[in-house]
Amino acid sequence: MTGKTLDPAQAARIRAAFETQGMMQTLGASLTRIEAGEVEIVLPFGPHIAQHHGFVHAGGLTTVVDNAGGFAAMTLMPEGMQVLTVEFKVNFLSPAIGEKFIAIGRVKRAGNQISVVEGEVLAESADGARKPVALMLATMIGVWLKDGSGGA
Amino acid sequence: MTGKTLDPAQAARIRAAFETQGMMQTLGASLTRIEAGEVEIVLPFGPHIAQHHGFVHAGGLTTVVDNAGGFAAMTLMPEGMQVLTVEFKVNFLSPAIGEKFIAIGRVKRAGNQISVVEGEVLAESADGARKPVALMLATMIGVWLKDGSGGA
Amino acid sequence: MTGKTLDPAQAARIRAAFETQGMMQTLGASLTRIEAGEVEIVLPFGPHIAQHHGFVHAGGLTTVVDNAGGFAAMTLMPEGMQVLTVEFKVNFLSPAIGEKFIAIGRVKRAGNQISVVEGEVLAESADGARKPVALMLATMIGVWLKDGSGGA
Amino acid sequence: MTGKTLDPAQAARIRAAFETQGMMQTLGASLTRIEAGEVEIVLPFGPHIAQHHGFVHAGGLTTVVDNAGGFAAMTLMPEGMQVLTVEFKVNFLSPAIGEKFIAIGRVKRAGNQISVVEGEVLAESADGARKPVALMLATMIGVWLKDGSGGA
Repeated sequence: MTGKTLDPAQAARIRAAFETQGMMQTLGASLTRIEAGEVEIVLPFGPHIAQHHGFVHAGGLTTVVDNAGGFAAMTLMPEGMQVLTVEFKVNFLSPAIGEKFIAIGRVKRAGNQISVVEGEVLAESADGARKPVALMLATMIGVWLKDGSGGA
Repeated sequence: MTGKTLDPAQAARIRAAFETQGMMQTLGASLTRIEAGEVEIVLPFGPHIAQHHGFVHAGGLTTVVDNAGGFAAMTLMPEGMQVLTVEFKVNFLSPAIGEKFIAIGRVKRAGNQISVVEGEVLAESADGARKPVALMLATMIGVWLKDGSGGA
Repeated sequence: MTGKTLDPAQAARIRAAFETQGMMQTLGASLTRIEAGEVEIVLPFGPHIAQHHGFVHAGGLTTVVDNAGGFAAMTLMPEGMQVLTVEFKVNFLSPAIGEKFIAIGRVKRAGNQISVVEGEVLAESADGARKPVALMLATMIGVWLKDGSGGA
Repeated sequence: MTGKTLDPAQAARIRAAFETQGMMQTLGASLTRIEAGEVEIVLPFGPHIAQHHGFVHAGGLTTVVDNAGGFAAMTLMPEGMQVLTVEFKVNFLSPAIGEKFIAIGRVKRAGNQISVVEGEVLAESADGARKPVALMLATMIGVWLKDGSGGA
C-alpha cells in the first residue's frame, strides 16, 4: 500500500468504531496503530482469554487479527462505507504463549467492494522477543449499511 | 460418524476441559451436547461480544464453533490425546443477529492424528426460528502433550 | 436450495460455458448434473492428472470442485451475470485413488452478489464404492462483465 | 527461512518428483527455482488451461502454487519424507490475464510434521510487468509413505 496517505478523519472513525466494540473491551484489546492499509491491535495475556491448556484461545487471537484486517481494509475505503468480514482462514503456528499478542492486518488487494487482507499475530514474551503464532488470509467487503442489516 | 459410541469418560474429560477454559466463561458460552463426532455449544447474545454495528463479533462466533469442532474431534480420540487447532476457515453468511447462537462441530474425517471437521453457527431469534450465520471447515491435530508445548 | 427450480435456459448457458473451458477438456472432465443450487462434474483418472505418487494431483480435484461450485452458484443467478471465484479452501481427506472422481458443488448461501458454496469430491473405485477425498468451502461473486476484466 | 542451506541431493529429489508429475506436463509448467524454504514454478498461458472467459482457470493457478508450496516444504524435510497437502486456501485477486504465471511457495513454519506455507501467483505480461493474481495459505504434512497409502 506504498504511497497511500491515511485520511485523519477516517482514522478517527476507525478509532470510534473500535471503542464501541464490546468484544474488544471484553478481551482487553487496544488499537495501537493505524496506517493506510495496515492496522495493529494488541491483546495482553490473561486467564479470561485462555483455553484449557492455559494458552490464549485460538478464537481470541482470531478475533483481534480479524479486527485488525477489517480496519486495515476500512482505512482505504471512502467515508461512510462499512466493512464486513466475508470469510477468513487462520493457521496456528505454535501455542499462543506470551505476555501480549500483537495482531497486524495488511491490505493486499483493495477493490471497490472486495478487499483481501493478510494478518499475522506475534507473541511477545517478557524480554520483548517476538514469535509468530498465527497467520490469516481473509476477504472483507465494503457495504453501504442503511438499516444495519448488511448483506451483499 | 454413524455407529460410533461416545465413551462417557471421554465426554467427562471434554466437559472438564470446557469448564477450565477462561474464554468460554468470558463469552458466557455453554456446552450443550456431546456425541461421538459431534459437539454443540450455545452462546447467548450480549453487548460484551458485539462489534460496532451491534452484531456478534465474527471472532465470537468463531471462538465457539472452533471449540465445538475441536471437542468433536476429541470425542473420537483416545484417552490422554489432546486436540489443537491447526487451522480453520469460516464464512459469514449474514449478520449475526439473534437471541442466542448455536455452534455445532462435526467430524468429517477422523485420522490417527489429523481430523477434519465442519462447523455451523445458527442464530436463534426470540420466536425460536433458526438461521445459519456461519460455516467452518477446519483441521485439528491430536497430540500427546508432555510439557504443554505441543507442536507437531 | 429446496423448492427452487432451475431455468432450462440457464442450464444451457452453464453447459455452453463448460464446453468452452479448455481446462475441462484438458483434464477430461464431464458436466454430469445441473440442478438449482447443485452441480456435479466427473473426472476420470488418468496419468495426465497425477502427481508424483500416482494419485490425482490436489490441484486437479480442486479444479473440478471449484468449477462445480461456481456453476452451482450460477444456477441461482440472473441471466447474464457471470460468476468468479473469490476464494476457496479445500481439505484433502485421503489420497485421491480411484477410477473416477465425482465433484459436487452445493450453494449454502445465495446473495445478490456473494454466494457461499460447499464442495465435495468422492473417489469411486472399480466396484462402484465411493469415498470422500476432498471438502471445499468457497466464496463466489456474481459480476456483470462488460469487457472481460471483472473485478469487484 | 534465513540461513538455511538447501541440500543439493534434496533439490535433485524435488526435480525428479516434479518430472514424474503428469499434471505438470499436462499444464506445461516448469520448475524454475529451488531454494531452502522457497520454490518457484512457471506456467505459460495457453487455451488448454483457460476457463470460459479466456482467463487461466483458478484451478490451474492453484495447481502450480500448491505444488510450489509443497516442494518448498519438502526442501526443509529429511531425505525420504514425503509431503502431502493437508489443505489450502487461495484468494484470487484479479483475473488471471498474462503471458505467463509465476507461482512462488514459501515456508512460514517448518515443524517436524506440519509445515505452513504461503504462496503467491504473479501474472507477467508481454512487457515483463508483474501483477499479483492469487495468494495462498496452506498446510502441508510430511509423512513416511510405505505403501503409497499415506494418511496421518
